[in-house]
Amino acid sequence: MSTKKYVYFFGGGKAEGSAEMRNLLGGKGANLAEMTSMEIPVPPGFTISTEACIEFYENEQQWPKGLDNEVKAHLAHLEEVMGAKFGDVENPLLLSVRSGARVSMPGMMDTVLNLGLNDQTVKGLIEKSGNERFAYDSYRRFVQMYGDVVLGVDHHNLEALIQETKDRKGVKLDMDLEASDWKELVGKFKAMIKEKTGKDFPEDPLEQLYGSINAVFASWNNPRAIKYREINDIPGHWGTAVNVQVMVFGNMGDDSGTGVAFTRDPATGENVFYGEFLMNAQGEDVVAGIRTPQPIAELKRIKPEIYDELEAIYKKLEDHYRDMQDIEFTIQEDVLYMLQTRGGKRTATAAVKIAVDMVDEGLIDKETALQRVDAAQLDQLLHPMLDADAEYDVLAKGLPASPGAAVGRVVFNASDAEVWSGRGEKVILVRTETSPEDIGGMNVAQGILTSRGGMTSHAAVVARGMGKCCVAGAGDIRVSEAEKCFRVGDVTVKEGDWITLNGTAGEVIVGKMELVEPKLAGEFGRLMEWADEVRKLGIRTNADTPHDAKVARDFGAEGIGLCRTEHMFFAEDRINIVRQMILAEDVEGRRKALAKLLPIQKADFKGILREMNGLPVTIRLLDPPLHEFLPREAHTIAEVAKELGVTEDKLRAKIDSLEEFNPMLGHRGCRLGITSPEIYEMQVQAIIEAACELAKEGVKVLPEIMIPLTGTKKEMSILKKLTVETADKVIEKAGIKLNYLVGTMIEVPRAALVADKIAEEAQFFSFGTNDMTQMTYGFSRDDAGTFLGAYLDQGILEKDPFQSLDQKGVGQLVEIGVKKGRSANADLKVGICGEHGGDPSSIDFFHRVGMNYVSCSPYRVPVARLAAAQAQLRTPRS
Amino acid sequence: MSTKKYVYFFGGGKAEGSAEMRNLLGGKGANLAEMTSMEIPVPPGFTISTEACIEFYENEQQWPKGLDNEVKAHLAHLEEVMGAKFGDVENPLLLSVRSGARVSMPGMMDTVLNLGLNDQTVKGLIEKSGNERFAYDSYRRFVQMYGDVVLGVDHHNLEALIQETKDRKGVKLDMDLEASDWKELVGKFKAMIKEKTGKDFPEDPLEQLYGSINAVFASWNNPRAIKYREINDIPGHWGTAVNVQVMVFGNMGDDSGTGVAFTRDPATGENVFYGEFLMNAQGEDVVAGIRTPQPIAELKRIKPEIYDELEAIYKKLEDHYRDMQDIEFTIQEDVLYMLQTRGGKRTATAAVKIAVDMVDEGLIDKETALQRVDAAQLDQLLHPMLDADAEYDVLAKGLPASPGAAVGRVVFNASDAEVWSGRGEKVILVRTETSPEDIGGMNVAQGILTSRGGMTSHAAVVARGMGKCCVAGAGDIRVSEAEKCFRVGDVTVKEGDWITLNGTAGEVIVGKMELVEPKLAGEFGRLMEWADEVRKLGIRTNADTPHDAKVARDFGAEGIGLCRTEHMFFAEDRINIVRQMILAEDVEGRRKALAKLLPIQKADFKGILREMNGLPVTIRLLDPPLHEFLPREAHTIAEVAKELGVTEDKLRAKIDSLEEFNPMLGHRGCRLGITSPEIYEMQVQAIIEAACELAKEGVKVLPEIMIPLTGTKKEMSILKKLTVETADKVIEKAGIKLNYLVGTMIEVPRAALVADKIAEEAQFFSFGTNDMTQMTYGFSRDDAGTFLGAYLDQGILEKDPFQSLDQKGVGQLVEIGVKKGRSANADLKVGICGEHGGDPSSIDFFHRVGMNYVSCSPYRVPVARLAAAQAQLRTPRS
Repeated sequence: MSTKKYVYFFGGGKAEGSAEMRNLLGGKGANLAEMTSMEIPVPPGFTISTEACIEFYENEQQWPKGLDNEVKAHLAHLEEVMGAKFGDVENPLLLSVRSGARVSMPGMMDTVLNLGLNDQTVKGLIEKSGNERFAYDSYRRFVQMYGDVVLGVDHHNLEALIQETKDRKGVKLDMDLEASDWKELVGKFKAMIKEKTGKDFPEDPLEQLYGSINAVFASWNNPRAIKYREINDIPGHWGTAVNVQVMVFGNMGDDSGTGVAFTRDPATGENVFYGEFLMNAQGEDVVAGIRTPQPIAELKRIKPEIYDELEAIYKKLEDHYRDMQDIEFTIQEDVLYMLQTRGGKRTATAAVKIAVDMVDEGLIDKETALQRVDAAQLDQLLHPMLDADAEYDVLAKGLPASPGAAVGRVVFNASDAEVWSGRGEKVILVRTETSPEDIGGMNVAQGILTSRGGMTSHAAVVARGMGKCCVAGAGDIRVSEAEKCFRVGDVTVKEGDWITLNGTAGEVIVGKMELVEPKLAGEFGRLMEWADEVRKLGIRTNADTPHDAKVARDFGAEGIGLCRTEHMFFAEDRINIVRQMILAEDVEGRRKALAKLLPIQKADFKGILREMNGLPVTIRLLDPPLHEFLPREAHTIAEVAKELGVTEDKLRAKIDSLEEFNPMLGHRGCRLGITSPEIYEMQVQAIIEAACELAKEGVKVLPEIMIPLTGTKKEMSILKKLTVETADKVIEKAGIKLNYLVGTMIEVPRAALVADKIAEEAQFFSFGTNDMTQMTYGFSRDDAGTFLGAYLDQGILEKDPFQSLDQKGVGQLVEIGVKKGRSANADLKVGICGEHGGDPSSIDFFHRVGMNYVSCSPYRVPVARLAAAQAQLRTPRS
Repeated sequence: MSTKKYVYFFGGGKAEGSAEMRNLLGGKGANLAEMTSMEIPVPPGFTISTEACIEFYENEQQWPKGLDNEVKAHLAHLEEVMGAKFGDVENPLLLSVRSGARVSMPGMMDTVLNLGLNDQTVKGLIEKSGNERFAYDSYRRFVQMYGDVVLGVDHHNLEALIQETKDRKGVKLDMDLEASDWKELVGKFKAMIKEKTGKDFPEDPLEQLYGSINAVFASWNNPRAIKYREINDIPGHWGTAVNVQVMVFGNMGDDSGTGVAFTRDPATGENVFYGEFLMNAQGEDVVAGIRTPQPIAELKRIKPEIYDELEAIYKKLEDHYRDMQDIEFTIQEDVLYMLQTRGGKRTATAAVKIAVDMVDEGLIDKETALQRVDAAQLDQLLHPMLDADAEYDVLAKGLPASPGAAVGRVVFNASDAEVWSGRGEKVILVRTETSPEDIGGMNVAQGILTSRGGMTSHAAVVARGMGKCCVAGAGDIRVSEAEKCFRVGDVTVKEGDWITLNGTAGEVIVGKMELVEPKLAGEFGRLMEWADEVRKLGIRTNADTPHDAKVARDFGAEGIGLCRTEHMFFAEDRINIVRQMILAEDVEGRRKALAKLLPIQKADFKGILREMNGLPVTIRLLDPPLHEFLPREAHTIAEVAKELGVTEDKLRAKIDSLEEFNPMLGHRGCRLGITSPEIYEMQVQAIIEAACELAKEGVKVLPEIMIPLTGTKKEMSILKKLTVETADKVIEKAGIKLNYLVGTMIEVPRAALVADKIAEEAQFFSFGTNDMTQMTYGFSRDDAGTFLGAYLDQGILEKDPFQSLDQKGVGQLVEIGVKKGRSANADLKVGICGEHGGDPSSIDFFHRVGMNYVSCSPYRVPVARLAAAQAQLRTPRS
C-alpha cells in the first residue's frame, strides 16, 4: 500500500524539495529546500505540504491519514542531523513552526517560535547556552506566543503581566528585566492561561508541536487572512504549508542578531543592497516595528565578515532566481543563517525598473520582463504625483515607504477609514503603527502615514503591495488615536483635516496640494513598447470628454470603445433642454427641444472626434431611463418647475409617470430609441454632422455608432435603419464620402444567446459586461452591497464579479455571444467596454475568447496594454 | 424562365388549389377550391396567394413581379367561364374581393363587394337584372364600401348623406329609398369622396380591382388586425390571401337571400344544424347585426328545396372535413351558392363535446379528438358558473351567445373597459352592438352584453372565440352610451353598477351573484382521461393554500410544484411578527420573533400537506426582499410603529436601510438565507415538523424543500447543509422515517449556465421562468408596460414573453439548464413553476426539452393536461 507523501525534509546540504515545488511546499518551504541544495546555510527542518492543509479542511479539520507518522519520522531524522533531541533535558532541540503559502501573505498567518521548551528542557537550554536570561526570555516568548496563537488567549492579557512586573520593579524596557523576572512571568503566564482556557499549559513538546501545526493550518482561514486573499485575488482553496525548522537565536547576545533585506531597492528598483537589522533580537522584533532597526550598511561596519558572507549569498540568490529577492537572516553567535528567500515585493516603479534593468543586464529576456510586472500593480504609476516644481512647507518627514502622492482627509482608525470612504470621502489613514487588523482601512485609504516603524514595517510592506502612497516612521509626529488628532510641535491636525503625503520623498504636508498626471517615460515607456510588440488585443478607452480622450491617447489608447452621451445631457447648459424634451406633450414638442440640443451635442462630438484624429470612436446613443434626468427632491422640483415654466403638478405628474420599480430593467437603452426615435435621430445627426465638418477640415474621423441594450434582432434592424437613413441624409447633404459603422452593445443575456441573429444587422459588438453581470447573476450593483460582503466571506464568490469578470458564468455568455456573432458575420468586430476591460485576469479571458479589443478607463490603458501582452505570452504557441 | 405562380383559379368543377393549400391560399381560398372540386356550387373566381402579400410587404408595398400579368390572365379566364366581361356595358361581370388568412380573423380585414360598377356598367346591370333599384343599391354599396375601405373616407360621412336623404323624404329605413334616391346618392358619395381625397372616384373597373386588392393586402396590418393577432397568437409574417370571386346577389328580391350556419351548435356542441339567414340581403347585413335574422329552421318552411340542398351540402362538408363547419351561402333568384366553408369557431364546451361525439360517431379517433380542442380555450370551462339551484330575478333576456357566467361592474365603451380593468376592476362591457374597434375592451371584460345582433353577430362570435360569457341581442334593454347607462322598463343601470350575466341561459341579473366552481365531468372528463393516457409530462400546480390545493387536485394536479411561503407572512395575524423579526437588532431578537412564527407556519404547511396526501409538495423558502413586509405610506408607518412599540424614527430608519434601487435584483431569495440563515432554519423546521406530525397520523407526505434564486453551487451547498441538518434533527426527534428532497429554483441566467455544478448539490430543479424572462431580456415586468405595447406593435416581440415563453432566447437557457443539470445528476427531477406552466405553446416546449413536469395555477391544470397530451402527439415517433 503506497501512502501519500505529505512531509519534505531539508538539511545538511540536501533537500527533498526544490523551488519548483512552490504549490506543494509553499513559497517559504520550496525556497528553504532550494537554498539548502545550493549549500547556503539554512537551519534544517521539514515542510508539511499544502495538500495536507487542504485535506485537513476537507476532513473536518482532522489530519490526513499518515501525516502523524510522517511528522514523527521526520522529527527523528532532524534529531539525528542535529545531534539533539526534542524534549531532551540535556540537549533539547528547539523548533520554529511557520506558515508558508504559495504566495507570500506577510503577517497574515501564525508562527510559533522556541517550541520544545518546558520547565525541564529550559534547564538544558541554560546549560547549553550558558545564558539563563536568554533561556528564560526564550521560554516566556514561547509560552506567550503559544498562549496567544494556539490557545487563543488575548495577547493583551499576557502583556499586562509583563507591564505589572516592570511597574513593580520600576523599569521601562523588556531589556531591563532579568532571568528571574522572566522565570516568574512564565509561571504567571501559565496560570493566566489556565484561568482563561481551563486547561494546563502543555508541557509535552510533541503536544506543543501538534498544537502549533494545527494553529498554522487554522490561521489560513482567520478573518485577516481571508481579507488579504480577497484583496490580493488569492484563492481560498490553495491552503498553506507548515515549516518546522530548527531554531536559531538572534537574541543570544551582542554577537547575535537578525535582519531582513532586499537585493535591490524595493521602492525605486535601484540596484543596491537594501535592508535593516537589529542585534540581539529575534526576527519578530524587526518586523513589528517596536525597535527601530539599523540600515544594512551599518552591518558592514560592525560585522564585516558576516556582511561579506551575506553579500555573496544575496548575489548568488539573485543570479540563481534571476529576480530581486527578499531575504531574512539570523546571526547566532557570529554564525550566519538564512531563514528565507523569496521574490521581493516591490512598488510598480521598482518592478518596472528591475524588469527592464535585468533585460539590460542580460539576466532575463523581454518576454520574461513583461511577465515580471504585475499588470494590476501598474495602476499605482498611473496616479497623480506632486509636481516636481511645486513649492510647499513640509510639516514632518518620515521614510519614503511607498511612492506617489496622496491627498485626503485625516482619519485615525481603519473602521473610520472604511466609513468615510464609503460615503465618498478621500481619506489618509494615520496610525502610530499599523497591524494586520487595519488591512480593510488601508485598502480604502488614499495613503498611509505612521509615526513608528521602518521601511519593512507592516505599513510599508502592505502599502507597497497595494501600490498606495505611504510615509512610515515619521517620528516627529505624535498620534493620539483616542483624541483623533496628531501633533507636530505646536501644530495639531484633527480628524477631517486635509493633508497631502508625498510617498516618494517621505513628506507630510498640511492642506490639499495640486497633483500632476503621470507620464509614460523611461523604463515604463520601454516596457510598454515591448508589450505592444507582443500583444494581439487592441486597447481602447472609455472616454466622454476631449480631456479624457487625450489622457487615454497619451497612455496609448488606440481608439474610444465607449463614449457615453448621457453625461453630456447632464451638463448645466443643457439639462433643462433635456427636461423640456421629456415634458413635451408630443413628438413635435420633443423635436423642438431636441433641435436645441443638436448644436450642443455636435460640438461635444467634434471635440472628441478631433482629439481622436485617425482613431475609431464608438459613441453610444442615449442609455439611461428618462427619469434620471428629472429632479427628485421636493425643493428641486419646485425650482425646476419654475425654470421650465410648468406647474409643479405637471412636473410631478411626469416624474410619477416615469418612475420605475427596477430602472435597471426598465425603459432605457434601445427601448427609448424604439419609443422615441427622434432622440436617436438627433444624436445620429449630431454625430454625423460633427464628423462631416471635421472631415472637411482634414481630420480623419472614424465614428462607430452604438445601440445600447439590444436584445432582439428586430430592435437592431429598426434602429440601424433609422441610423443609416439619418446618417446618409447628412452625408449626402455634406457632399463628402464618410465611413461609419453601426453596431450594438451586448448586455442583456438574451443578446448573447441570439447573437447570431443580431450579428446579421450589426457591424460590431461591444460587450457591456457591467450590466450583463447584473442580469446574469440577478445582482443589482446598487443594492448588492448588503450581501456581497457575506458572499465573499463565505466563499460563495471568489472575487467581486463587478471587478473581475465571472468567467464561469457571465463568461459563458460572452463566449456564446462572440462565437454566434462571428458565425453569422465573419467580419464582426468584437470588443468589451465594461469596467472589466481594465482588469488583467478579465483581459486574459477576453484575449482567449478572441475579442478584437478591450476598452477601459484612461488611467487603466497601460495596465491593459501589459495585461494583453501577458495574455498573449500565456497563449500556447502552435 | 420560370416565373413564380401567385394566382390560383377555381370554377366550373375544377380548381388549381385544395384544402391542403391553406397556408398558401388562406383558409377561405383553400376551401373555395376544395368545394369547387367537390362539385358544390361555388361562384367561380381566383385566389391571390399569401406569398404575394408577404412579398408585397417585403417589397415596400409593391406587387411582386408577374402578379399583374397573372391577375389579368385569370380575370380573362373568369370572363370566359362566366360569358361576361369585367367593365362591359352590356353584360358586366361583377366581382367581390375578400381577404383570407391561414386562420379565420372574422371582421378584422377588409372586403369590397359589387366591384366593376360605374356609371356605364350599372346600366348593363339594370338591363341584365331588370331591377333598377337593385342595381343602384348595389352601385351605391360599392361606392360606399370602396370609399371607406380603399380610399379611407370615414363611413360616417357617407352614412350621414343617406340619413339626409331619408330625413328629406321623411322615411326611416334603407328599404324605403327608391332607385332614384340611390342613384342620386351615388353622385353625392362621389362628390364627398372627391372633396375628402382630392381625387375623382375611379371609374375604371381594373383600377377598382387593383385598388381593392391593395386595400386587402394593407388591411393585414390595420390596427385591429394586429390587435386580433396579438390576442390570438397569430404571427404577423403569415400575410393574407385575396379572393376575387364573381358576385352573387342575395339582394335581388324575395327569391334571394343570404345566410350563415354551423353544422353543429357552436355554443353547446349539440349535433343540430344551426344558423340564421335574411332574405333580400347581402352577407354583410347578417353579420353586422343591423337587421335581426331568422333562424335557419325558418328556411325549411319558406324554401324547402333550397333547405334540402343546403342540408345535403352541409352533411357532405362535415363528412369530408370530419369537423364541424361554419358555412356561408347566398341564394340568388332561387339558386343556392356556397361562399365559404371553414372549421367553425366554437366554445370550449362545444369543442369538447364535438370532439368526443365525433369519436363516438366513428368520424375521428381519440388522438384526433385531443388535437381538435384548443388547450388554451379550455380555460373558459374552468371559470365559475351560476349555481344551477340559485334563485334570482332576471332583469332582461337575450341570446345565450357564449356560455358561462360573469360578474362585474358595467362600463359602456371599450376604452373605459380597459381603463377600469387596468386598475383592477372586473367589468361587463355593455354596448348596443360591438364592432371590431371594441376588441381591446372585450378582451379585458368579464362578459359582454349587447342589445342588438344575433348568435352570429360580432359580439357573439368574438366572445365565443375568447371563451368569454356573452348575452347578445337583449332587445329589452336600451343602451345609452352617451349617458353611460342602460334601461329596462323603469330600471336604470348606471356605469359602475354591478350586474351578473348568465351566458348559458342568456340572462341579465342586477347585482353580484355567487358563482360556483366548474367540474370535470361528462365529455370533458372523458377527454381529460384520454389526455392522461397519452401525455408523458407530469402536471402540478402552484398553490399556497389548502383551498387552492384542493381545487387543483380536483382538476387532476399530481402534486404542488410551487408553494410560496411569503403569502403566509403577509396574513394579518403574523405580519407584525414578521416586522418584529426584521426590526430585531441581532440574531437573538430575530430568533425570538421567528419562534412565534414557527407554530403558525407549521399549521399552514400541515393544511397543505394534508390536502395533498400521497402527492409531492414543493415548498419554496422565503423569496421576496424584506422591505416588502414593511409599511410604505406615512400614516401606516406611524400606526405600525405604535403597534410594534418602536419609535417611528427607528421604523423609518429600517425602511430606509432596506430600500433598494432594483428590488428584483436585490437582497432576496437565497441571499436572505445566506445572510439570515435563521429564517430558513425556522421554515425548514416548520415544514418538517408538520410533515412528521402528519406522517404519524398516517398521512402520506412528500415534502420537497426549494431554495429560491440560486446562482452558484456554493449557495446551494451552504443552504442544503442548513436544510438537511435542521430537517434531520427534527426527524430524529420525531423518531420516524421521512423522505424529503432539497432542490432549487433555476431563475437567474447564471444558474442555467452553471446548472451542472448546482445539480451536484440539488435533487431537483424548478425553472422560474418569470424571473428568468425578466433577467434574460432585462425587462422588469412591473415597468415593461411602457414599451411592451410598442414592441408588439412593431413586431419586435411576437408575443408577450411573460405570457408565452420566449423559446428562442430564454428557452436556450432552459435547455442548457436541463441538459447540464442532467449531465451532472442523471436522477435530477426537472420542472417549471413560472406562469408559462399553464401556456400550451410553452408546455409543448417544456415537453420537448424533457422536463418531468410543469406546474401551473389550479384553474389551468386541465389546460396543461391537454396541452401535454398534444405535445406528446406532436412528438415524432421513432
